[in-house]
Amino acid sequence: MEQKMNYAAEEIEEMLHAKRFRELKAVFSAMEPADTALLFGELPDELLPLLYRLLPKDMAAEVFVEMDNDEQELLISAFSDRELKEVLDEMYLDDTVDIIEEMPASVVKRILKQADPETRRQINEILQYPDDSAGSIMTIEYVSLKADMTVEDAFTRIRRTGEDKETIYTCYVTDKDRHLTGVVSVRTLLLADPDDRICEIMETNITYATTLEDKEDVAKQFSRYDYLALPVVDQEKRLVGIVTIDDAMDVLQDENTEDIEMMAAITPTDKSYMKTGVLETWKKRIPWLLLLMISATFTGAIITHYEAALGAYVVLTAFIPMLMDTGGNAGGQASVSIIRGLALGEIEYSDTPKIIVKEALVAFFCGLTLAGANFIKMMLIDRIAVSTALVVCSTLMVSVLAAKVVGCTLPIAAKRIGFDPAVMASPFITTIVDAISLVVYFQIATHVLHIG
Amino acid sequence: MEQKMNYAAEEIEEMLHAKRFRELKAVFSAMEPADTALLFGELPDELLPLLYRLLPKDMAAEVFVEMDNDEQELLISAFSDRELKEVLDEMYLDDTVDIIEEMPASVVKRILKQADPETRRQINEILQYPDDSAGSIMTIEYVSLKADMTVEDAFTRIRRTGEDKETIYTCYVTDKDRHLTGVVSVRTLLLADPDDRICEIMETNITYATTLEDKEDVAKQFSRYDYLALPVVDQEKRLVGIVTIDDAMDVLQDENTEDIEMMAAITPTDKSYMKTGVLETWKKRIPWLLLLMISATFTGAIITHYEAALGAYVVLTAFIPMLMDTGGNAGGQASVSIIRGLALGEIEYSDTPKIIVKEALVAFFCGLTLAGANFIKMMLIDRIAVSTALVVCSTLMVSVLAAKVVGCTLPIAAKRIGFDPAVMASPFITTIVDAISLVVYFQIATHVLHIG
Repeated sequence: MEQKMNYAAEEIEEMLHAKRFRELKAVFSAMEPADTALLFGELPDELLPLLYRLLPKDMAAEVFVEMDNDEQELLISAFSDRELKEVLDEMYLDDTVDIIEEMPASVVKRILKQADPETRRQINEILQYPDDSAGSIMTIEYVSLKADMTVEDAFTRIRRTGEDKETIYTCYVTDKDRHLTGVVSVRTLLLADPDDRICEIMETNITYATTLEDKEDVAKQFSRYDYLALPVVDQEKRLVGIVTIDDAMDVLQDENTEDIEMMAAITPTDKSYMKTGVLETWKKRIPWLLLLMISATFTGAIITHYEAALGAYVVLTAFIPMLMDTGGNAGGQASVSIIRGLALGEIEYSDTPKIIVKEALVAFFCGLTLAGANFIKMMLIDRIAVSTALVVCSTLMVSVLAAKVVGCTLPIAAKRIGFDPAVMASPFITTIVDAISLVVYFQIATHVLHIG
Repeated sequence: MEQKMNYAAEEIEEMLHAKRFRELKAVFSAMEPADTALLFGELPDELLPLLYRLLPKDMAAEVFVEMDNDEQELLISAFSDRELKEVLDEMYLDDTVDIIEEMPASVVKRILKQADPETRRQINEILQYPDDSAGSIMTIEYVSLKADMTVEDAFTRIRRTGEDKETIYTCYVTDKDRHLTGVVSVRTLLLADPDDRICEIMETNITYATTLEDKEDVAKQFSRYDYLALPVVDQEKRLVGIVTIDDAMDVLQDENTEDIEMMAAITPTDKSYMKTGVLETWKKRIPWLLLLMISATFTGAIITHYEAALGAYVVLTAFIPMLMDTGGNAGGQASVSIIRGLALGEIEYSDTPKIIVKEALVAFFCGLTLAGANFIKMMLIDRIAVSTALVVCSTLMVSVLAAKVVGCTLPIAAKRIGFDPAVMASPFITTIVDAISLVVYFQIATHVLHIG
């Protein structure tokens, strides 16, 4: 795919030890900042400050932003005050805030000391927005225009201030009280006449987010409406910042990871798998395992309750794993379909009756197929009594039905009462469906086989 | 969030029946095309052609693109040839191709007949790229510049041709053989001197995709490197199109949905849940349910094999569900962590030994916690014999260990041999771990309790 040069960590180390600095500089300047940061992560920590100083000036801050927090911290402590100030001046404010949020207090103090008073004030403002809010991911470096400017004025302004803005392609028009009155894209500006006034060509029917809105909801708007940036206003509808598509994309990927982890009964964190230690991984997983294990012991109680029946028909035990697994799988399919539909905004609360009918029908056909296949197998291969086979097959049908209905309703119910629907995925559904399946199994067995 | 007006389907229907057309036009022109398309989907099909004709001209094609395939087909059949041509002329070529791919042959024929010969040739070319390739999602409407142009020339060209381009913010520089030689952003152009030559300011160190490359790999580059567009070249390195970030974002979301569906043992399709019929849903789910059910019957065979032991100690049966569920959950956690890590590119094949060691350690601590909790519960609440409790607890430890190790290795192995790792999620892992747990259980039981 890439034409960019990508060097192995060993080669870089070798070049460094041979003091081939000029060559290294050339290598780094031809690499993408994200790749350079990854490469630095694979090299010994003590080489980091030296390597960093070999980066071309205009690239250093970009590489710094892409690094892991541990490496950033290490570098900051190696930086002179002047070096730290240089990096901070080059970074966009939203990236600075992201880094500050992950650093220990002493490092934060040093960073804030190097920032000029106005930047410090802005950083502190962004830091106050909750972690999951639009305010926390916005940038304040946007191009703002006035309604009475001409297109030519606008270009002059973009040329003068554009260097430091995260995006120049969408410009925001504000009145004297900083209220957002219009949006105009560089595309519109380029295609307009230089003498046109901004107020004549700007879009006034604006979609915006508010600072406290959920960042996930904001990110979804980008994929729905194909925006490149979205303005963020405060409670008084004054423009305070913008969210750009690259940050929205990161939010969406993070939310997907979170959903997937929750569906597998893991407490989500924003650290990557390889960076999470053993004890941390244990902490993310054990509460759910414990909770689910304790719930599963109730299923054991059901078996104990029917011990007499089991004693008489030990053959019944052999089908417990198959019944449990199939119920769990059938329920998991339904719940995951609904969870994903809810996450993508394809499913509304009002669809519930339609969904239940559909899942019941799907369950009927699935149950029929599974029971049919199983009956044939039990007759031809297991050669067990027809009555036992019928007990197993009817249990299969009932438990697939129960699984699908429970599986599709619980995520919707969870969302309704304000929980994350992703919790209601296979592990939980399985535990509930197991109990239902076993009760059904033994009930049918005691009636058909006249035992108990 | 939105300031945009959003009307309920009933209101629109009422306004339509009252022939308040002017009002409806105003409503539609203030809505986002994606919202209008959604609204149309909720209204009776027979109203669609009339509604569509009320859309402002400059918005009609955008709304059309956002509609569902059934509605698009319905509209096309209601369109006159002239109307069809108008929509096609307004649409970007990649959207036209997307629609063509979903339409029946007769509709495709009509669409191609309305397209001019050059467009028809281009459509046919894009249609030849495989479904999952970069070629299939690219657009050919980009701005191309020549290296010897001045910045002013470039702006003249952008102004002249920009109207029909999907993005103008990244421009591509090609030589006389259409080879890609450079990339320049409108930002760079705006900040440059009008007399600068393009060759002096363009970026020549270009990242590109090839037409046949996997579209998922291409989409991931966008979130990694924060691109707005990526050029696509053919085997001879000639520029043939570009992929824009909105399409990349859609690919990422689709791939996430696919992964999640596969993890839940559902065959992925690109239709949304609410649009998929009962039989279609059945078809997506039943093959996996059948396969997993048949695999689970082997677990039954293990129980049958140890029937004698079970006959003597029916109490052992009561712990089967808890052991199976816990093993499945523990394995699912490990496999899903690895699957996601692979999907995000955080985990490499070479990390395997490190991962196995880590999962084994996590499994040890998880197993210890679970066994401890269970032992206390069995002593205090169930009041069963210490020997039986020890059998259950040691099985728990062994099966959590097996589950985590199997769970983390299978996805990597699947990827290694070219399968999608997402298949190796909870359902499959559970089936395998169930069998292992039961064998371990009965082996330990027969030795400790001297039965069998």
